[in-house]
Amino acid sequence: MYLHGRNVLREILKLEPKKLKIKKVLFTDQKNVDRELEELKEHTAKKGYRMEVVPPEKLFNLSREKKHQGVVINLKEFPYTSLETLLDKIMEKKRSLLVLLDRIQDPHNLGAIIRSSVAAGADGVIITEKASVEVTPAVVKVSTGLVFRIPIVRVVNMARTIETLKEEGFWTYAATMEGEPYYSVSFTDKAALIFGNEGKGIRHLVKKKSDYLVSIPMCEGIDSLNVAASAAIMLFEYRRQWALREGVNP
Amino acid sequence: MYLHGRNVLREILKLEPKKLKIKKVLFTDQKNVDRELEELKEHTAKKGYRMEVVPPEKLFNLSREKKHQGVVINLKEFPYTSLETLLDKIMEKKRSLLVLLDRIQDPHNLGAIIRSSVAAGADGVIITEKASVEVTPAVVKVSTGLVFRIPIVRVVNMARTIETLKEEGFWTYAATMEGEPYYSVSFTDKAALIFGNEGKGIRHLVKKKSDYLVSIPMCEGIDSLNVAASAAIMLFEYRRQWALREGVNP
Repeated sequence: MYLHGRNVLREILKLEPKKLKIKKVLFTDQKNVDRELEELKEHTAKKGYRMEVVPPEKLFNLSREKKHQGVVINLKEFPYTSLETLLDKIMEKKRSLLVLLDRIQDPHNLGAIIRSSVAAGADGVIITEKASVEVTPAVVKVSTGLVFRIPIVRVVNMARTIETLKEEGFWTYAATMEGEPYYSVSFTDKAALIFGNEGKGIRHLVKKKSDYLVSIPMCEGIDSLNVAASAAIMLFEYRRQWALREGVNP
Repeated sequence: MYLHGRNVLREILKLEPKKLKIKKVLFTDQKNVDRELEELKEHTAKKGYRMEVVPPEKLFNLSREKKHQGVVINLKEFPYTSLETLLDKIMEKKRSLLVLLDRIQDPHNLGAIIRSSVAAGADGVIITEKASVEVTPAVVKVSTGLVFRIPIVRVVNMARTIETLKEEGFWTYAATMEGEPYYSVSFTDKAALIFGNEGKGIRHLVKKKSDYLVSIPMCEGIDSLNVAASAAIMLFEYRRQWALREGVNP
């Protein structure tokens, strides 16, 4: 897949090259564009990635995006993390926040939720393999490249994943229209927040497996918020409660 | 402008026809599509709007959208509200929440913020005339038609608007990177929350006029949230505080 933009490249340069399957990083062949681009080129070369300079039209053709900022990255595939690897990584943590997405379909929503998850300090985002958008160039763009800063896990069975997380000490909170107001819930240190499909919400079985149903009370006559807005509100409520408990900004 | 979709038409049908400049409502000429569409047709006829049935290809050509759901609305212009009209309307209210947007440029962000504003029970959204996206078909779509349920005001001078609101008893809160954590702020009953441009934030003069600078503490190394996420978090914090104060779900 072809990714573009300087923020995205900057995030990629923070990672170990062996963690990514990068075929090539392409830069504009325009001379003296700006100092920032020169620095990115040097950094990319140091990391040992294959590079090529091409006319800006080619960058546009590959990325289908005018605002490519002189940078296109050819990535073989997005580096998903396995559930096991994620669990290993967070096992020892006293506090951990996970985000579970049950069949989110809009790339804009997935990208926005990933961005908010990183900002709230979440340890991972778990998505369903079926009937869900995967990490596409649009998702990477909306996440402003932050998709490379958090493990993204794809699972076949979300209900079973919830069972596994419970065994690991997580409490699970499903965002629904019914259920307790989110601000009356005391989130546990290890919490998994679950959000559902844009039209249909969380599937029945997934909801049934969850420990708590949590709602966001809203204006009469309105029956839903955008899922990325709901996620932002609940993720930062978790962070707010934690900050107040610890007496510091985490 | 050409709007599309059933939710949008449903919102429009709730309004007085004289408040809108609707040229025509176009429906698909396919027979027996579904009961819902038939009901929308009847309702549209009752309201006295000009109607036309056309082939679905024409609906696609007008709306440039595959998911037009058999409905396209030809609207002469979006019905903005004047600041004076909005102030008249809320003058007597004990509690009022306004959302001020200083040069938001992405239609997706404007639509999402309008949707969250309605859900949080805000009384109006005020945008800048210059260097700001206006209400386009994309904004209407992302707002799921809720843009018709809340006054949208365009102002020339945001700093002066803040002065006016202060005279009307509003306290103004600017969302910035610095400033007090949003959850340590006690929002007043009459509050105006201000959000800035996606890249540059709120302009200096607008910030200077604001009563409070408010921030959303986030994970180290992350310097910004998407503005629609920030707005959702702060709007619902206002609502949370109000609900707790009143002891009910407002």
